[in-house]
Amino acid sequence: MRATMMYGAGDVRIETVADARLIETTDALVRVTRAAICGSDLWPYKTMEHSETGRGMGHEAIGIVEAIGADVRSVKVGDVVIMPFAYSDGTCLFCRAALQTSCIHGGFFGNGQVDGAQADAVRVPQADGTLFVLPVGIDNALIPSLLTLADVMGTGHHAALAAKVGPGKIAAVVGDGAVGLCGVIAARRLGAERIILLGRHPDRIALAIKFGATDIVSERGDEAIERVRELTGGFGAHSVLECVGLDESERTAFSIARPGGAVGRVGVPQDETMPASRPVFYSNVTVGGGPAPTRAYIPELLPDVLAGRIEPGRVFDKVVSLEQVPDGYRAMNERAAIKVLIEF
Amino acid sequence: MRATMMYGAGDVRIETVADARLIETTDALVRVTRAAICGSDLWPYKTMEHSETGRGMGHEAIGIVEAIGADVRSVKVGDVVIMPFAYSDGTCLFCRAALQTSCIHGGFFGNGQVDGAQADAVRVPQADGTLFVLPVGIDNALIPSLLTLADVMGTGHHAALAAKVGPGKIAAVVGDGAVGLCGVIAARRLGAERIILLGRHPDRIALAIKFGATDIVSERGDEAIERVRELTGGFGAHSVLECVGLDESERTAFSIARPGGAVGRVGVPQDETMPASRPVFYSNVTVGGGPAPTRAYIPELLPDVLAGRIEPGRVFDKVVSLEQVPDGYRAMNERAAIKVLIEF
Repeated sequence: MRATMMYGAGDVRIETVADARLIETTDALVRVTRAAICGSDLWPYKTMEHSETGRGMGHEAIGIVEAIGADVRSVKVGDVVIMPFAYSDGTCLFCRAALQTSCIHGGFFGNGQVDGAQADAVRVPQADGTLFVLPVGIDNALIPSLLTLADVMGTGHHAALAAKVGPGKIAAVVGDGAVGLCGVIAARRLGAERIILLGRHPDRIALAIKFGATDIVSERGDEAIERVRELTGGFGAHSVLECVGLDESERTAFSIARPGGAVGRVGVPQDETMPASRPVFYSNVTVGGGPAPTRAYIPELLPDVLAGRIEPGRVFDKVVSLEQVPDGYRAMNERAAIKVLIEF
Repeated sequence: MRATMMYGAGDVRIETVADARLIETTDALVRVTRAAICGSDLWPYKTMEHSETGRGMGHEAIGIVEAIGADVRSVKVGDVVIMPFAYSDGTCLFCRAALQTSCIHGGFFGNGQVDGAQADAVRVPQADGTLFVLPVGIDNALIPSLLTLADVMGTGHHAALAAKVGPGKIAAVVGDGAVGLCGVIAARRLGAERIILLGRHPDRIALAIKFGATDIVSERGDEAIERVRELTGGFGAHSVLECVGLDESERTAFSIARPGGAVGRVGVPQDETMPASRPVFYSNVTVGGGPAPTRAYIPELLPDVLAGRIEPGRVFDKVVSLEQVPDGYRAMNERAAIKVLIEF
């Protein structure tokens, strides 16, 4: 089969590899029909050291179940399924607590240990807990939006929950990538009264406004903090969604939260440390978030996607074939695309 | 009047100073009958640079109202009152949200700007919002426990709330100082199933067990983390109360929280940074807390103190007169005393 392999920073190749196959009795084999390139794929794309063996990439997919192991019960051959970015058994104490990204028997796709989904097929461990069977056909027009439930829409929702978004509150979203844009959708969906997007790319800002952003702050650093303060009566936002993960964006997120507010972090932190005392401690700002248990959120978000109440699939502004995936990485890295959809 | 002045590390003196007096029309003048030395007073006691003018110390007191400004409505001369460590107007948006430590017109006693309460009398700004009138006489046997509502008991309660303690959960308390011990009381009061105290002083451990601690971990660093893991089935505690503020104790607190758990920080952070990614982000551990709005918690905690259901006053194991306060600082700094009560 053909698969996306990364060999180092900027070095993405589509290669013929050994066919994906069942290994454990709890596995499913999924033929991928749609996959995506994620903002988090750009971290290794910028920094990965050269590898002789390469790393299979991709962690978001929709596809058709082609085979199941002997112990798989909840999916069957022919099902159309969403594959969330983490696999999970669905039964451990963390899965039962809706924290599938800490599953005792879980892990992550495309991380070098389990193969990736930017490929013709993917082996899905813990298929019963991991896969979500969709009630629509593989060519449904809603498939791009449904694909975002594998990661970015669920991740934006996770940020909004961790930031305690709710009716009457002011939310601020740091970052205008696909996750930040989905954070805008999530904040609106959860009833935020105002949604301030911190971003500087005109196409993304336009989409954010369609998604419900009420204010745009394009400044950076101290100027951005000052601008958010002006927009919020001097106090800052109740709920801040940190959707980048860089040191500067984290500091901005902490600084624009009002006393007693909350910051939901979903941008993978690229630095080892964050501020301990000012402003978060002295302002009693709560810092939450982490890898989103997107599997847990599919049942809640799916009806809104199916009914067209939310359209997160609009974050895909470039479509490529599997063979064109290296172009997709380049486009996202150069910010020529918000998010790339891979059609098979 | 006589007052406690700090001139530098280890240099605490009792001196005759100008009498405290009303300045603003919203002030009250309180004659102090009981005050205390706080663990947080030990930070400047260890590190303060020499000052020519000195700093009036103390931020916990019970006393009698001697005079009120023209605009004070809710307290009257002769009232027996608790003075929380922060003053607050009681009416701003943060006070209404029960976050008096972020009051727009508020501040802190004994911080160099407003004088301290380790003195014969203290000027209390924003008296209406700050002071809590007690329903008992000044010599009531419960006064030491009531005095802890000014700071340490309310601070332990704040840590427990930020750590999301609740029925059926395992709580861990990092630190066996007065705040940590009050954190044990608070965790028990909020229904924790098990309470693990991390501490190493036999007298404090004995008191923690009386307060409800079920397990004691006296190791430090990685060994403490390992021991808590062993005690919790390998997963860590649901709720961690960080009651120290040092870099090592924060790292320990983060590392013993289970995935999806919460850390409530009330120890004033002595370092600028804390870990950003592992373990808190990858485990979706929520970090909350800060300066406790103890004023907000008095109505909730007071009935339990009056009924004898909680006895936080037992943290006072040394009583001094105002003139003996320098001995009290020495005793606390050398850990010869858990917490010092000042009787006038």
